[in-house]
Amino acid sequence: MNASLQEGERLDYITRELSIIQSSLVFAFSIDAVLLARFTYVPKTKGTIIDLCSGNGVIPLVLSTRSSVPITGVEIQRLLVDMAGRSVIWNHKQEQIVMKEADVRDPELRTKIGEADLVTCNPPYFPTPQDAEKNSNPFFTSARHEQHGTLDDIICAASGMVKQKGKVSMVLRPERMVELFETFRKYRIEPKRMKMVYPKHGKEANILLAEGMKDGKAGLTCLPPLTVYDEKGAYTEEFRRYYEGC
Amino acid sequence: MNASLQEGERLDYITRELSIIQSSLVFAFSIDAVLLARFTYVPKTKGTIIDLCSGNGVIPLVLSTRSSVPITGVEIQRLLVDMAGRSVIWNHKQEQIVMKEADVRDPELRTKIGEADLVTCNPPYFPTPQDAEKNSNPFFTSARHEQHGTLDDIICAASGMVKQKGKVSMVLRPERMVELFETFRKYRIEPKRMKMVYPKHGKEANILLAEGMKDGKAGLTCLPPLTVYDEKGAYTEEFRRYYEGC
Repeated sequence: MNASLQEGERLDYITRELSIIQSSLVFAFSIDAVLLARFTYVPKTKGTIIDLCSGNGVIPLVLSTRSSVPITGVEIQRLLVDMAGRSVIWNHKQEQIVMKEADVRDPELRTKIGEADLVTCNPPYFPTPQDAEKNSNPFFTSARHEQHGTLDDIICAASGMVKQKGKVSMVLRPERMVELFETFRKYRIEPKRMKMVYPKHGKEANILLAEGMKDGKAGLTCLPPLTVYDEKGAYTEEFRRYYEGC
Repeated sequence: MNASLQEGERLDYITRELSIIQSSLVFAFSIDAVLLARFTYVPKTKGTIIDLCSGNGVIPLVLSTRSSVPITGVEIQRLLVDMAGRSVIWNHKQEQIVMKEADVRDPELRTKIGEADLVTCNPPYFPTPQDAEKNSNPFFTSARHEQHGTLDDIICAASGMVKQKGKVSMVLRPERMVELFETFRKYRIEPKRMKMVYPKHGKEANILLAEGMKDGKAGLTCLPPLTVYDEKGAYTEEFRRYYEGC
């Protein structure tokens, strides 16, 4: 496999140092994924990382700039696994990142993929839609709606693959915070750190970054808030620094 | 009863328009209580409000500036009920606020106190201490530690006293957010609104304001963050406005 672009594809920047292959046919990465990769704890030189619902591989790519450990991206859609694999090559990360086509609902997932010190996931944000609400593009529907696994399925899989005292980090809409924390606890992931992201000063939060520890002790730390846009609609300085990992 | 000060007592301002009787012998109100009284939904002209663990009555006093409905403050310590009652008179609120000596663990509490459209509570923040950790002053121990009822006891009482679709609002340390939301749900209070308060820019949150609805639909809104102090250690303008209710 080489890193060449296929029809309809383009090469976008993730950050100043990383590029990614994207296509108008499938879901593009959002800032949410990059923020998760900046927010999460990472094992730096020892251990392994698994990214579930990995899509076009944006989270493994950003994590590879923060850690030298092996990273496995798990994605159910073959087209995205292929695109992500070529992005990995384009960024010269093929020694560190492997993309695998697999279903988070597969009970043999741990046997097939292994276990990790950190499991990350930017899951679909919306519960399974009625047929009328589904996007006519199946790639969009799959990325945004819980078509290939619910939040419960994903956290069950994450808990099964993370080592004792390892971390699980996820990004979700704040609306679902209570459900997220409840499901974390259901699968013995204790919420330990969170960070709220606000689109603008004075607005309600629209991104929740959350990290739990397998069989961790109760006690949550709420990190300083992050505001994305200033009054003029430009990125704030604090957002730019956080996003670029400065 | 009149509003005269007793030995060791002093009259403090809560806000520009409210005064409160305090004493170095007992726990003074904190900004947390005032922020809760600003944050919470209030029934404006119809209905009733109950404040549990009411202490020196700071929450009923602030709520009385936002609402004209009857407010009952419930407090287990007779000395505080007495002080709060005199503060109510001092502020000419005796037509609206009644302070009652009662235990939140009393199974007859609803029969004795009634039901409400809103139940507020600024509970003790820390679980029951070991004897060695207890403050030698029993009033401090009671205000800070779960000596007269755990978080579970309080939320059980609040849920029992709030009407269907009524609100329960509480302030707690963010460390216990997961426990708070879990206990809310245990007693059919669905978390609906929250606001995080940060001591200073770049610091972790230290106050969590949370409101739930009895038998409400799932879905949490996270309001804009509030920062208390500026870089020079003075109150920020946004904090002053929020605190004073401007």
